[in-house]
Amino acid sequence: MNNETHTDLNRRRFVGTATALAAGIAMSGQSARAGASEGELQKSKLKLPPMHKGRKPEVAMLLYPGVTLLDLVGPQAVLSPSCNVHVVWKNTDLMETDSGLIMKATSTLGECPKDLDVLFVPGGEFSVMMDPEVLEFLADRGSRARYVTSVCGGSIVLGAAGLLQGYEATSHWSARDALSLFGATPVEARVVRDRNRISGGGVTAGIDFGLVLLAELLGEDVAKLSQLALEYDPAPPFDAGTPAKAGPEIMGRMKEWLGPAGEMLMPMCAAAAKNMGKYTPLVK
Amino acid sequence: MNNETHTDLNRRRFVGTATALAAGIAMSGQSARAGASEGELQKSKLKLPPMHKGRKPEVAMLLYPGVTLLDLVGPQAVLSPSCNVHVVWKNTDLMETDSGLIMKATSTLGECPKDLDVLFVPGGEFSVMMDPEVLEFLADRGSRARYVTSVCGGSIVLGAAGLLQGYEATSHWSARDALSLFGATPVEARVVRDRNRISGGGVTAGIDFGLVLLAELLGEDVAKLSQLALEYDPAPPFDAGTPAKAGPEIMGRMKEWLGPAGEMLMPMCAAAAKNMGKYTPLVK
Repeated sequence: MNNETHTDLNRRRFVGTATALAAGIAMSGQSARAGASEGELQKSKLKLPPMHKGRKPEVAMLLYPGVTLLDLVGPQAVLSPSCNVHVVWKNTDLMETDSGLIMKATSTLGECPKDLDVLFVPGGEFSVMMDPEVLEFLADRGSRARYVTSVCGGSIVLGAAGLLQGYEATSHWSARDALSLFGATPVEARVVRDRNRISGGGVTAGIDFGLVLLAELLGEDVAKLSQLALEYDPAPPFDAGTPAKAGPEIMGRMKEWLGPAGEMLMPMCAAAAKNMGKYTPLVK
Repeated sequence: MNNETHTDLNRRRFVGTATALAAGIAMSGQSARAGASEGELQKSKLKLPPMHKGRKPEVAMLLYPGVTLLDLVGPQAVLSPSCNVHVVWKNTDLMETDSGLIMKATSTLGECPKDLDVLFVPGGEFSVMMDPEVLEFLADRGSRARYVTSVCGGSIVLGAAGLLQGYEATSHWSARDALSLFGATPVEARVVRDRNRISGGGVTAGIDFGLVLLAELLGEDVAKLSQLALEYDPAPPFDAGTPAKAGPEIMGRMKEWLGPAGEMLMPMCAAAAKNMGKYTPLVK
């Protein structure tokens, strides 16, 4: 993309905002409601221009029922102005995410580009790691993608597809150890890179992960620009973000909150690991 | 909620996971596709139990076309296990968010509880601050809500509804100064509290904001539990999250990226401020 095109994009964005302003001023209660007729997609008037000149990397992010929405939206917010982000699932029907918000994929697994710059899997409801259609898709795209990536429990799903054998990786603190069942080496870190595998820790690690990935794809300046746009200058009011920092009392309440479900992950992963060779040849 | 009920919830969650596991093991490629028939809502099998015993606070989060999705999903992830979160808009039709993801509200403005613990507005496409139906809703619910809150450009929308007159507040760094047009005092901080108004800075500040709010609603231990569940132990790979930290070179690129749209906000706010008295009585 040359300078002119970049300026054109900014101009279009300006025009979009000016139109939005005019529309807003002209909008009566009646006309506002008229835009809300049943079933009509309500469009966003503002389009974010890319933060760089040149080709946009092709990124596929897996969406699925019960996905941890913030696992996906964190890196998606970091990457989306500068990448073609395809949010993919078997279909484009509506689905419930972990916390009840309703989403839909932007394209199906079949429509997803065959050759990706980035394949990304977020965490969530773990039964996706037993789904042959998903695992076949991941093993196929992962075999050619420039980067094979995940946040939170997404690394468990990559593991089940056989894509982390012989690699270091991380996951949510509660799931990290299970990576070894898939032939991976669990590492306790916010973001772990081993050759072209990049994985982030639990949920909010997706923002740190996204910035690491964006710098890798398009350089540090673009990553810093994205960090500034998202005002990512974190200041947590408490220091309880890891089991060690939270301490035994909060960890006790956490175990109570997780309940018996917390102990189901290892047997699920062991069952999933038995099928691993079906999708990606096992490392000898 | 007593101990028994809390245990029941955990048990239901366990059963949910066990069912999901069984379903995953039994799922063939064929049956997986069968679940994807046109138009059917694909449910999440996992339900997060609350992190406390007792009443769940009622939280309304405004959704709108062009919303900055991470502004909403950050605090929603922090609050959702422990609060009744209503994601509200004029209708429950599909809408595009800032970065192209498709969402829908869980209830309409009319269905939203009249008496809220928390009214929350995220940032995004600014023409919403000129929409009488939205401003009337905010002024009404905001007049009775225990907490009136925002992240990023959401404070501008609260301002347009007349809800920040005489209060200190913050916003995204690029929009903060505009708060003064609505009679608010802009403060440069990650999270600003003034009596029952709590506002967060740009986009990612929503996570810090969410934890401050959750501690206020349900105590520090619940907030710490949420922080641990989200593994919020941030480690940004760069230090460019504010204009001062990003430095002049990145700020130069930022201005180029924003283009003329960056200069549209002040006139838009000045126009919106003229209507402010319609919704909430002006402070003398």
